[in-house]
Amino acid sequence: MDEGTTRKIMDIVVKPRDVIPEEGRTLPAAYYVDPRYFDREMDRLFGRMWVAAGRTEAVEKPGQFFLRELLGERVIITRSTGGVRAYYNVCRHRGTQLCTEASGTFPGSIQCPYHAWTYDLDGRLVGAPHMDEVPHFRKEDYPLQPVAAEVWDGHIFISLNPVPPALQTQLAGLPGKFAPWRMGDLRLGHRITYDVKANWKLIVQNYNECLHCPNVHPALNRLSHYLSGENEPLQGTYMGGRMDLRPGVDTLSMNGTCPRAFLPGLTPEDRRRVYYYAIFPNMLLSLHPDYMLVHTLWPVAPDRTINICEWHFHPEEMAREGFDPQDAVEFWDTTNRQDWHVCELSQAGISSRGYRPGPYSNREDLLYAFDRMIRNIHSGEHP
Amino acid sequence: MDEGTTRKIMDIVVKPRDVIPEEGRTLPAAYYVDPRYFDREMDRLFGRMWVAAGRTEAVEKPGQFFLRELLGERVIITRSTGGVRAYYNVCRHRGTQLCTEASGTFPGSIQCPYHAWTYDLDGRLVGAPHMDEVPHFRKEDYPLQPVAAEVWDGHIFISLNPVPPALQTQLAGLPGKFAPWRMGDLRLGHRITYDVKANWKLIVQNYNECLHCPNVHPALNRLSHYLSGENEPLQGTYMGGRMDLRPGVDTLSMNGTCPRAFLPGLTPEDRRRVYYYAIFPNMLLSLHPDYMLVHTLWPVAPDRTINICEWHFHPEEMAREGFDPQDAVEFWDTTNRQDWHVCELSQAGISSRGYRPGPYSNREDLLYAFDRMIRNIHSGEHP
Amino acid sequence: MDEGTTRKIMDIVVKPRDVIPEEGRTLPAAYYVDPRYFDREMDRLFGRMWVAAGRTEAVEKPGQFFLRELLGERVIITRSTGGVRAYYNVCRHRGTQLCTEASGTFPGSIQCPYHAWTYDLDGRLVGAPHMDEVPHFRKEDYPLQPVAAEVWDGHIFISLNPVPPALQTQLAGLPGKFAPWRMGDLRLGHRITYDVKANWKLIVQNYNECLHCPNVHPALNRLSHYLSGENEPLQGTYMGGRMDLRPGVDTLSMNGTCPRAFLPGLTPEDRRRVYYYAIFPNMLLSLHPDYMLVHTLWPVAPDRTINICEWHFHPEEMAREGFDPQDAVEFWDTTNRQDWHVCELSQAGISSRGYRPGPYSNREDLLYAFDRMIRNIHSGEHP
Repeated sequence: MDEGTTRKIMDIVVKPRDVIPEEGRTLPAAYYVDPRYFDREMDRLFGRMWVAAGRTEAVEKPGQFFLRELLGERVIITRSTGGVRAYYNVCRHRGTQLCTEASGTFPGSIQCPYHAWTYDLDGRLVGAPHMDEVPHFRKEDYPLQPVAAEVWDGHIFISLNPVPPALQTQLAGLPGKFAPWRMGDLRLGHRITYDVKANWKLIVQNYNECLHCPNVHPALNRLSHYLSGENEPLQGTYMGGRMDLRPGVDTLSMNGTCPRAFLPGLTPEDRRRVYYYAIFPNMLLSLHPDYMLVHTLWPVAPDRTINICEWHFHPEEMAREGFDPQDAVEFWDTTNRQDWHVCELSQAGISSRGYRPGPYSNREDLLYAFDRMIRNIHSGEHP
Repeated sequence: MDEGTTRKIMDIVVKPRDVIPEEGRTLPAAYYVDPRYFDREMDRLFGRMWVAAGRTEAVEKPGQFFLRELLGERVIITRSTGGVRAYYNVCRHRGTQLCTEASGTFPGSIQCPYHAWTYDLDGRLVGAPHMDEVPHFRKEDYPLQPVAAEVWDGHIFISLNPVPPALQTQLAGLPGKFAPWRMGDLRLGHRITYDVKANWKLIVQNYNECLHCPNVHPALNRLSHYLSGENEPLQGTYMGGRMDLRPGVDTLSMNGTCPRAFLPGLTPEDRRRVYYYAIFPNMLLSLHPDYMLVHTLWPVAPDRTINICEWHFHPEEMAREGFDPQDAVEFWDTTNRQDWHVCELSQAGISSRGYRPGPYSNREDLLYAFDRMIRNIHSGEHP
Repeated sequence: MDEGTTRKIMDIVVKPRDVIPEEGRTLPAAYYVDPRYFDREMDRLFGRMWVAAGRTEAVEKPGQFFLRELLGERVIITRSTGGVRAYYNVCRHRGTQLCTEASGTFPGSIQCPYHAWTYDLDGRLVGAPHMDEVPHFRKEDYPLQPVAAEVWDGHIFISLNPVPPALQTQLAGLPGKFAPWRMGDLRLGHRITYDVKANWKLIVQNYNECLHCPNVHPALNRLSHYLSGENEPLQGTYMGGRMDLRPGVDTLSMNGTCPRAFLPGLTPEDRRRVYYYAIFPNMLLSLHPDYMLVHTLWPVAPDRTINICEWHFHPEEMAREGFDPQDAVEFWDTTNRQDWHVCELSQAGISSRGYRPGPYSNREDLLYAFDRMIRNIHSGEHP
């Protein structure tokens, strides 16, 4: 982006950013390639924090379930009459995996395919053939191993932490901040799962700066200027900011027009903005005037991350004759693929012995803050 | 299997089993997933014991050979005029693998494809071009490296143990017990090789209890009731038992009828039974009234086992016009696939951090005994 | 090869070789299978020596480039007005890989696809958007990380050694010895890339003895007798020798005739010979009367080597109507595949616990010398 182009867009208010300090450099390579760093991040972030795992609409009725793979676990997420429940996918008899379908509906109970041990939807063992011959055996000693599950405005979070803090603590001020979007009302319009050959942190970092937008995303940059908007300082458990739509642009879609009504409850200001929040460790929440985009990240190796991207719309719009999410889906699918490509190039380059930590610009302030948080995760342990 | 169904089959004599003790639980996960446990089992069981490797009919004439992969070795099994022989598949000159065909016939000698060193069928080096120019070289110093080979009633066993005990010691009472089946007379009717994504012990354990049969094998359970029969206490090197055919059932086949004559030499009692013996470490021997089923297990990783399954019949039956083994093959192929599926589910579940050793029922007595033997293999070394 | 056949070819002068000493045996298996040995060889040989990487004709004009993968690095090899240049493929900003095309032409500069940092062909950073807002930032601190590059008679060599000795030191007497072939004039006629499942040293060893030729290469042996020629004693950085064409044979081609003029500048003697030189660590240079064959080896694992084979001819011949390299290409492609097959068999056999270092014949003198050099690389570190 040369100076000339910058000057041409006088309608954009470009706020200066704080000057990055001299030590503001990218992380050493080990953070992205060394399995010991990866394992620590999996243990301390993905294994202890609340992880965004899906939407309540997928388990609206008791017995509906889906699986999510976290730290190698294929966690069962379902609903009993008491609410959303999550379990390790393991029979208490001989350890058999109970469920292999990606989603479906349990017939009121969960039965092991091997010896027919049977659990109710609250995880209680209710059937165990021939175990009544064993005098010391008590069914109540063998419930399904629970995984913690809580809900925020339609988003299901799970935690492998046996004693997790309240989800509310992790979300801090976000529920209040994003209440006007009424996310709980929205419904899934489209889902694409990407397999990205890059460390999960590179995807988070890519998400949190738009300095690359003129070069990588010309279409996005035409709808929303890369220097527009403002960042919120990094909080303990999330970071983000907003960008402004250019004049005449209604939303992020293939041609910038919006064939849908705006979400009810938004202020006129918020109808001109897109909010981008990375909620650690795995959720990228992008709120548009008329839809919600949610990425969830599922790291599988230091250099590989499964990325599930979902587009959610207002149910009234979805019910309307001729509803078509394609303008928003195609726009972000294109943008996503451009992003994953440069993330993969970064992963490849950082793995080189020619890599040295490089200098951040003032426009990469959130990345520098994120890196400091990541350094804390590993503090005192190198490698 | 509910109580009602159990009561209906009054023709079955259900013997009570000893009560399993309170500490009778499945093994910790490391035994199934940790490569160090796998390596110890490969070294101490598969690397030292006699391993069932095939049948003498495959090497009936001198020079006939086949390869078997054991602990990463592609062992050559052949016959010289002196008997069955086995060798490491390695030239003594520069280490070249001598033989890559899965089976075939050597033309009287074994020649290295690289520099044409040549060995007779007893492993003696008989040709080594240009080595006569080297004064200190003596052909007799470079025979093929032998692998021990012995035969029991048509079954070839090999051992990588440089000084193995007699095969007879390992087999203990089995040759006497199974003499009436005249296994040496039987001939291969069909072979299927399965690639099972499970630890070899899960396959052995699956083989040694029928508590899963009502749930997993409804067809088998219709022919032979899962509570019928009796187990022999675990011996040092094998374990097994028998199950009874239901009235009106002649053998284990698709419809329970037997289109073949019973094996000669069987008592009327044995014509009503199927014997299931796991001969450690790798042979599962299933003797039916009219055929012999042999599984041999070839572990390749903690979570992967190659399983070769063979159906053997009496040669007089095989010579008969219209002989067709399909009723027995299809029955066991179906049953096998059901078993490998639950073994794979167990492997997946045991790998979970949600796995905890679970309680055995009285009907899983052989598994508990087997586990204690396996614990001894690893005793004093954790992990 | 029996005595009778040897006597028949009286036209061949077979020189006796020195007697190999009794300790002249192949290397222990760890040298070929243990990743620690592989890593040391990569570090000390491929990471420090000059490595043959391609030909100057591929980067004739400034901006032309190609990539070569060495030790996991995808090195950029290009040309500025100042000469051949090589760089790590890594942006100094956030470590992004700059270039993914296997070859092409830079438009005067090298631009990072992520944030558009831009370097000139001499590696200087000339563009870094928004970094001018950062007061402590200086462009001259962030040039591309260089890889050393030098040229010998058309062959480009690169070195990851930050302070490499002169290429001339490594080549020792070779530039003088092979000056008559005027290799810098020759041009690429054909290239085949092989993926060989064998340790790189097995390929070097295979290249340096023809004792296997009667058995493995009957066509080659018909054109050039396997006992002909003479070896030069191993030098510090290369080894090789020559073989003689049989009477009536003009070059190594499918039928032994030569449809091309001999290379200008060769003596009548050299027109009757083929020279085979292994220039450590990765170049196999085979000079024929009318063409040059170059193999470069790119180890990727203890048991896997990428092998790039190129046929180079005189440009006047290539310009001639009806020029067709197929007779030479097909001859060596066939011979190559025979060689890789036995190299792969050796890799498989050496991995066996049945492998023991075996005795060398007098005809394997260069291999024994090579092995001693390799032992020195690892001296004092086992494993």
